[in-house]
Amino acid sequence: MNKIFIVGYHQSAFGKLMDVTLEQAFANAANGALATVGATPEVVDTISMAACCAPLLNDQMLLSGLLADAPGFANKPIDTAENACASGGQALLNVAYRLLAGAADVGLVVGAEKMRNDLGKMDGLQVGKALGTASHPDEREGKTFVFPHIFAEIMQRYIATHKDASEELLAHVAATHYGHANENPLAQMRKIKVTPEDVMRIEGVNRYVVPGLPLKTYDASQISDGYAALVVVNSRGLEKLGVPRERVVELAGFAQRTDPLRTAQRDDILAPRGAYGAVAAAYEMAGITADRVSVAEVHDCFSVMGAMGVEIIGKAGYGEGARYYADGKARVDGGATPINTSGGLMAKGHPIGATGVAMPGWCYQQLVGDVPAALQVKDLDHAATFNIGGPICASVVTVLKKV
Amino acid sequence: MNKIFIVGYHQSAFGKLMDVTLEQAFANAANGALATVGATPEVVDTISMAACCAPLLNDQMLLSGLLADAPGFANKPIDTAENACASGGQALLNVAYRLLAGAADVGLVVGAEKMRNDLGKMDGLQVGKALGTASHPDEREGKTFVFPHIFAEIMQRYIATHKDASEELLAHVAATHYGHANENPLAQMRKIKVTPEDVMRIEGVNRYVVPGLPLKTYDASQISDGYAALVVVNSRGLEKLGVPRERVVELAGFAQRTDPLRTAQRDDILAPRGAYGAVAAAYEMAGITADRVSVAEVHDCFSVMGAMGVEIIGKAGYGEGARYYADGKARVDGGATPINTSGGLMAKGHPIGATGVAMPGWCYQQLVGDVPAALQVKDLDHAATFNIGGPICASVVTVLKKV
Repeated sequence: MNKIFIVGYHQSAFGKLMDVTLEQAFANAANGALATVGATPEVVDTISMAACCAPLLNDQMLLSGLLADAPGFANKPIDTAENACASGGQALLNVAYRLLAGAADVGLVVGAEKMRNDLGKMDGLQVGKALGTASHPDEREGKTFVFPHIFAEIMQRYIATHKDASEELLAHVAATHYGHANENPLAQMRKIKVTPEDVMRIEGVNRYVVPGLPLKTYDASQISDGYAALVVVNSRGLEKLGVPRERVVELAGFAQRTDPLRTAQRDDILAPRGAYGAVAAAYEMAGITADRVSVAEVHDCFSVMGAMGVEIIGKAGYGEGARYYADGKARVDGGATPINTSGGLMAKGHPIGATGVAMPGWCYQQLVGDVPAALQVKDLDHAATFNIGGPICASVVTVLKKV
Repeated sequence: MNKIFIVGYHQSAFGKLMDVTLEQAFANAANGALATVGATPEVVDTISMAACCAPLLNDQMLLSGLLADAPGFANKPIDTAENACASGGQALLNVAYRLLAGAADVGLVVGAEKMRNDLGKMDGLQVGKALGTASHPDEREGKTFVFPHIFAEIMQRYIATHKDASEELLAHVAATHYGHANENPLAQMRKIKVTPEDVMRIEGVNRYVVPGLPLKTYDASQISDGYAALVVVNSRGLEKLGVPRERVVELAGFAQRTDPLRTAQRDDILAPRGAYGAVAAAYEMAGITADRVSVAEVHDCFSVMGAMGVEIIGKAGYGEGARYYADGKARVDGGATPINTSGGLMAKGHPIGATGVAMPGWCYQQLVGDVPAALQVKDLDHAATFNIGGPICASVVTVLKKV
């Protein structure tokens, strides 16, 4: 069986790209990643892209053509993957399958999103409506910004269902991730300090998004511009590029599953079968169990998903994710498996199409020792990512390890 | 090397789905295709979808979740492919690579589009604007309906560049395809008779779309609802399904290439390098040259693309595509390689996401003998499809043959 490797990663600072166009963002991401392995576009056999908000926020589809505009990228196989906020993860899988099949040896995965205008301003209603199209049409009417409302309900259910869950315990999710972001120079919230007490205090920007439901501003991820790209190869591609062994990480497992979009159709929204299935399949492919995962990036679009993410990747039992955070285990220095050492979607930022690229990208950097010293996890075995789209609907899971 | 086979195809009549929702369209397509091989969803390992207008025309992304709502489709790997009007072809390639890699044995490719409302009415300006997002932002301002205008300019350039090209010769493209559609009970324009003289006569619905440019209403494809799905397998999947040999077609070659989106950046818009490259790669994979192609479906979004399509697949020399039609060679009874025996995008209809699925779908039906007698091509060797997105930007080519 062919093996798949990640050998290079590049991203922008997440937050505001100002007057960088989507076209420039794609080219910067692609060229930046290639530069990390001293390569130029000529060596690239296949590319998959992600920027699922582009049709609605930037009046742009056919993103592949925008990248093909950049010098050296014309006339290659380039597609765009869409699985809402898991589009970046899906793009990685699209490339991985082509490499596995031997149809390509050197691949690029390029994700970006431009959710703010050239002055760095955003329109929360417009963004909410655009992302809201990733919900079932019967389940979005009357919801405040759509997804914040949907996840406020999920947060409420999480608290009501689990004996060891509360708004106070869940406040540790944001505090943990902001704490990590404070050490990550590319994180959007790198300068914002947030304690669990801050999360609980209704003051300034922090308010209940939907009256009567527990989700607050600090429980939510950011509206971000940003781009990210990975260089991904198979065994032949690895030889072609001649990347030194210490810069090579194996993409040892990966899987995707899609839960029904209509959440009312699920047995238990807190235990999404597709998400659990994707984790099981990726771990099986990598030949590991959860205890072999030393660091993880999970899809903390909202704090409850940080907690659930820890459960779904097998690092906490069902309903024990909030406690995992409150006990400090998610922290880089918590003595357990650190979660979202990048800062996560909440504090690193969440440029939708880039997110699913940046999660394995950060894990790659953890494994090769590229992250800032304060965030570097030692003695790493495997790293895992869990990227979702929609109301915990499309799940992409990856498992990385040093070669 | 693993082989890929198409073993089942199902589509709706193209035109108006009336009050069939996008969700129902996906389920109908998927279940309809599975029914042709006596299978149920349980056997499906992977699914790729296409409906690139859905975000802009139907306020819907995360289409994978909509299909996962249908009984039996929950918790499978499902993604959506986007390459504008080549999204359906891209979805087929996405599945094919997973099958080639051995990561899945039985795949489904599902394409659909709902471009009209529940009363069957369409808003041409809205559709033009949505599809217009598949152009470069610098090349769409002031263009009438965007793509009709862009292709009117390409048509003008085609006529100006080639000594054997004229509006009159290109009028045979529509006449040929409408003639085929008249025999296809699922074609949108099955009841509309169009002669070359009709195409040339400004009367009734037929008018110049942009004053001063040669493109007329009859030179354009339709605004359509419709859905289509293919069952695609590898060698193991073929065994699992037990499809009789006479119902099996090999997907012997396939390739995708992306030309720069900015047409001003091309050497010659009439000779798109990516498109020619995709054809060369697909033929090489299939181990054939153009003379082995006995029937083809090309992307006649506008009449000039019918002519160019015949050139690009190697059935006419550069600039000789219009003459190929005028000489009657594209006709099912023309004694050469019949083109768009389905009626093509112009007359069969063009539900965007379904189009790239329906092209190989029709070729599958040609190869297994499922098309109406008047359209059946005899003694078939290989069939080819050429599906494009944007201003001849993303090209997907497939080559099919009987096993």
